[in-house]
Amino acid sequence: MIVAMQERATEEQIDAVIDAMVEVGVGVHRTTGASQTILAGVGPTANVDLTKFEVLPGVLNVHRISAPYKLAGRAFRPEGTVVEFANGVKIGGEKIAVMAGPCAIENQDQITTIAKCVKAAGGEFLRGGAFKPRSSPYAFQGLGIPGLKLMYEAAREQGLLTVSEVMEISQIEAMLPYTDLFQVGARNMQNFNLLRELGQIRKPVLLKRGISATIEELLLSSEYIMSGGNYDVILCERGIRTYETATRNTMDISAIPVIHKLSHLPIVGDPSHGTGRRDMVPAMAKAAVAAGADALIMEIHPNADKAVSDAAQTLYLEQFSELMGQLRVIATAVERTL
Amino acid sequence: MIVAMQERATEEQIDAVIDAMVEVGVGVHRTTGASQTILAGVGPTANVDLTKFEVLPGVLNVHRISAPYKLAGRAFRPEGTVVEFANGVKIGGEKIAVMAGPCAIENQDQITTIAKCVKAAGGEFLRGGAFKPRSSPYAFQGLGIPGLKLMYEAAREQGLLTVSEVMEISQIEAMLPYTDLFQVGARNMQNFNLLRELGQIRKPVLLKRGISATIEELLLSSEYIMSGGNYDVILCERGIRTYETATRNTMDISAIPVIHKLSHLPIVGDPSHGTGRRDMVPAMAKAAVAAGADALIMEIHPNADKAVSDAAQTLYLEQFSELMGQLRVIATAVERTL
Amino acid sequence: MIVAMQERATEEQIDAVIDAMVEVGVGVHRTTGASQTILAGVGPTANVDLTKFEVLPGVLNVHRISAPYKLAGRAFRPEGTVVEFANGVKIGGEKIAVMAGPCAIENQDQITTIAKCVKAAGGEFLRGGAFKPRSSPYAFQGLGIPGLKLMYEAAREQGLLTVSEVMEISQIEAMLPYTDLFQVGARNMQNFNLLRELGQIRKPVLLKRGISATIEELLLSSEYIMSGGNYDVILCERGIRTYETATRNTMDISAIPVIHKLSHLPIVGDPSHGTGRRDMVPAMAKAAVAAGADALIMEIHPNADKAVSDAAQTLYLEQFSELMGQLRVIATAVERTL
Amino acid sequence: MIVAMQERATEEQIDAVIDAMVEVGVGVHRTTGASQTILAGVGPTANVDLTKFEVLPGVLNVHRISAPYKLAGRAFRPEGTVVEFANGVKIGGEKIAVMAGPCAIENQDQITTIAKCVKAAGGEFLRGGAFKPRSSPYAFQGLGIPGLKLMYEAAREQGLLTVSEVMEISQIEAMLPYTDLFQVGARNMQNFNLLRELGQIRKPVLLKRGISATIEELLLSSEYIMSGGNYDVILCERGIRTYETATRNTMDISAIPVIHKLSHLPIVGDPSHGTGRRDMVPAMAKAAVAAGADALIMEIHPNADKAVSDAAQTLYLEQFSELMGQLRVIATAVERTL
Repeated sequence: MIVAMQERATEEQIDAVIDAMVEVGVGVHRTTGASQTILAGVGPTANVDLTKFEVLPGVLNVHRISAPYKLAGRAFRPEGTVVEFANGVKIGGEKIAVMAGPCAIENQDQITTIAKCVKAAGGEFLRGGAFKPRSSPYAFQGLGIPGLKLMYEAAREQGLLTVSEVMEISQIEAMLPYTDLFQVGARNMQNFNLLRELGQIRKPVLLKRGISATIEELLLSSEYIMSGGNYDVILCERGIRTYETATRNTMDISAIPVIHKLSHLPIVGDPSHGTGRRDMVPAMAKAAVAAGADALIMEIHPNADKAVSDAAQTLYLEQFSELMGQLRVIATAVERTL
Repeated sequence: MIVAMQERATEEQIDAVIDAMVEVGVGVHRTTGASQTILAGVGPTANVDLTKFEVLPGVLNVHRISAPYKLAGRAFRPEGTVVEFANGVKIGGEKIAVMAGPCAIENQDQITTIAKCVKAAGGEFLRGGAFKPRSSPYAFQGLGIPGLKLMYEAAREQGLLTVSEVMEISQIEAMLPYTDLFQVGARNMQNFNLLRELGQIRKPVLLKRGISATIEELLLSSEYIMSGGNYDVILCERGIRTYETATRNTMDISAIPVIHKLSHLPIVGDPSHGTGRRDMVPAMAKAAVAAGADALIMEIHPNADKAVSDAAQTLYLEQFSELMGQLRVIATAVERTL
Repeated sequence: MIVAMQERATEEQIDAVIDAMVEVGVGVHRTTGASQTILAGVGPTANVDLTKFEVLPGVLNVHRISAPYKLAGRAFRPEGTVVEFANGVKIGGEKIAVMAGPCAIENQDQITTIAKCVKAAGGEFLRGGAFKPRSSPYAFQGLGIPGLKLMYEAAREQGLLTVSEVMEISQIEAMLPYTDLFQVGARNMQNFNLLRELGQIRKPVLLKRGISATIEELLLSSEYIMSGGNYDVILCERGIRTYETATRNTMDISAIPVIHKLSHLPIVGDPSHGTGRRDMVPAMAKAAVAAGADALIMEIHPNADKAVSDAAQTLYLEQFSELMGQLRVIATAVERTL
Repeated sequence: MIVAMQERATEEQIDAVIDAMVEVGVGVHRTTGASQTILAGVGPTANVDLTKFEVLPGVLNVHRISAPYKLAGRAFRPEGTVVEFANGVKIGGEKIAVMAGPCAIENQDQITTIAKCVKAAGGEFLRGGAFKPRSSPYAFQGLGIPGLKLMYEAAREQGLLTVSEVMEISQIEAMLPYTDLFQVGARNMQNFNLLRELGQIRKPVLLKRGISATIEELLLSSEYIMSGGNYDVILCERGIRTYETATRNTMDISAIPVIHKLSHLPIVGDPSHGTGRRDMVPAMAKAAVAAGADALIMEIHPNADKAVSDAAQTLYLEQFSELMGQLRVIATAVERTL
């Protein structure tokens, strides 16, 4: 950490800051220039709240110079993490994985039809929500575990893996038999108790970026899971909230290369939530692949207009199949497969 | 709801949209002008996902014309809600309530000293965190229920009420005996399962606005609690995330008059989280009172620089006492008391 | 336009709103449902300030149902605009154009070296700033017209076109002989007097999106130029300001498909300003091409670290040449050339 | 400036960074800890582009430790700037000044009526736009200099000062005889050529914060004016763009205390543009005064609903007069007058 003192800081103020730094356990190196004193704190500061130094008398500003996360940082595994599933499917390797399915599992027919489509198009994961977080208490809330079973059976018939959202700790155990990849939704990215519990299981976790989370906060949240011993974390960019209203969210494609630089964890693009509009999904799916995404997750439905939720952003099955062909060409262009 | 068709929409497209509107249960009135057809949907649309109409062929745009919340709307209780506590303290009335205390409960000495200060300065609530949501897994996580008991005892000795954050459903029951007002933190504003459970208890809830939540979303979240039968919801503005970095968050003072217009629920200002800086708290506390806040919640600590969390935004006890005097004058200027 | 009245709006209030609508020249259709009255205004509203209706007594909300721009709208030229330059180069057609060069023109050697590199790599435009808008008054402000001449000569030797930023009306005439494409920078997107003057010239204009401009505002600004008779407007996405700090701006890749849907104007991606970081430029350049960009504009410099401005986001010449090869493959994958 | 190297940075990389620092003219102090090397650069860095260091090999991050502005900084005039006008009116002193008037000057009757109202209510400045920046080219663009003359005469009859927006350099000279305070609008906050010219005149400048400008950028823009020798700069907070749509902008009340801390320049609150809604103006005007604003600027009109622009945010004259009385009480509560 670095503390820059104001030009007119007194020696007493400087000493008080040095004392406060020593108290949190860092060694202090002092540099005094013609007009300003700089205090460099060397030592572990990941668990120090730096903002408290900002309001000490005589302080101009304070900077963290090391990342506040450790296990999630690139340096922890410079070669990158590849998450491997029981059937040999990998995320983070040369092949770009595809996860597709409905926003909400509705019934057996629906999910079976979709599973066949995902398989035929070359996808690896069937996605579908059994528990739905909805802004309005009057909206459909999901089928729960019975729905998840339907999806699991449909997936396994096709040799697919399943990914589904867990909304609270009490659901984890019941979901375990039917879930290959536990999704943490954007609204729960900082539900730290849930993250901590997911650090205790031995199944991979798909952690979605909150709609107003910085990339640093996303990595800190992944650290919660990893610090429990579960290193199989996959991150997901699904759009952030900005002032622009032409799309539901602004999909931050640059998060993909940024995360690849800062972290070893794989990163997935979600163009469905990223845009909120069916007609924008193909362009953004292509962009995500071109920018280096390790996987894609998309919403599809045989009768997309009548999907019980997220209808506007859901692709028709034919659209999905056609898009998969186009994505394969882009993947080749960036020297990967799909 | 209103669906505006594109200028060159065909009759088939218009008919398909009308069918889709009828299907969700609204009556349709059609207006065809020289260049454009407009379809007005009359009937209950609070639980209709309007975005699905946006991507139907021939549609230009879709607008919701009634608020998506009901119980939270001003029309439900035009005279405004006054939440009354066991000891007669009210929030939403003429007197502006003050809640103060440490970010985290640390020990008996700390909380007792603070309780005395709050009482002496004229506050009504002792606040303090027993369970702390922290961005970093390596930071202090709170004392839990034993800490809450310490706070409860310190509060009752002074005749104060207690307010503390609940982070998950499993904590509710254990917190009940020691908590007069259950705080839902910004990160949990859309933890719908938690909100639903809080709709079942018979104690008031302080619902904080998420750092990237719209006012409409805040009201929808309050609807989750009220739809369970608990109408004693108090809202809280605590700063939103913007691009500005001079303050930790941007405290949206205008949310206070906006909420008073749209809703009957009381609204509290939190200048500590709203700014993240001790030196900005007084100005923003005054602004909140001037703008019509029904209560204030602030972080204070006898040794603010060494508070285990949120040190930078925590007032010293003397600062708090002095500020209370100043706030009282502003309250009078807006024809209230404090 | 649509005005939705509050549930308890009186007949007098409704009549007053109808009168106000008639006064601005729209025909009014009234729909009264069980609980709410809706007033649909049919007629030209592009120059009506709708917000004034929002604060009339009894009004719940007001919606614009037709786009506020006309000439920029897709409907004006459904087939899309292709801007053609004197040497036959086109923007908006099947071939993706590339514009590259230094942030600021520094001297003849620099610009000549760069021009050769752009040509060799297959680019069509040499870019370079002669007038530099700088946040700090103490930073380098550009060489002015003499610099522009240097760039023009270097470009023409290589058969390249030139693009350079115009910062104010008084510069237009002097720039005309040396500028094939006039760039309006993000800070000037709403400098309406400048836009109006550029509507009078007969050279194409590259209009950059302001860092906090909505896509609708960008299209309205293009309308200023087109309404003067200059229809050769090319739009540019160069990153918007969000709360994320890992990149200088957040490049809104989804603006590319959105603009293609709403407008007939070509859209260019600027990954240099979009990210502010050299190491992120290649990924975002690829993403822009994959998402459908009609051209790219990038900053390059033989000695990128020592460029007098924007050094951090400037590619080395070898990086640029290598990237061009990669982009060509992506272009093919989306059925275009580059 | 501080450059923090990555943990695994090589000596060659460190040396290259030191060389680059020396090259821009700073002295370098090196601190090497157990895991990381820190390079502190001491010397003038206001005109150094620090971002270029961020992308040098081996660099983790770079921090500016001194403010990039000088003349605008608090240290330049610790006692604060008080701008004094010819008639003795001051901005920045104990008395809070009030500026009011229509968005656009429409005709003699309108402006005379308003001038009388401003005077009677105790205001000091008559505001009114002669040149209007409008998002749509089809909207009313202002009466120009003849309109400004009308306002000047109406103001002087009442002993008021005038404030009006200048949109481009060519307007300055013509406006000089009729303008006591030159307003730079939010869209022109970074029109650096205009700012530079305003640094040459000897009349005060009211500089509005851009809707997406940081406070640091606002101060840098004021530096452009001051570096020309015109130190009479008054800043204005008029709302920033956020994701919230309940108000047109989010008025950043905390900018008031932040600017008072960072700078010596007076700061004005604009609750009209800050909210965009007449019904929110009174609450936010009060909040601005409570937070320490040195002046207020508000839009008023005898027939507010029919104002040719900004109708929704314009107060009726009676509302304004009533509000002035309320503000006077708040001013007293914060130990000022109005």
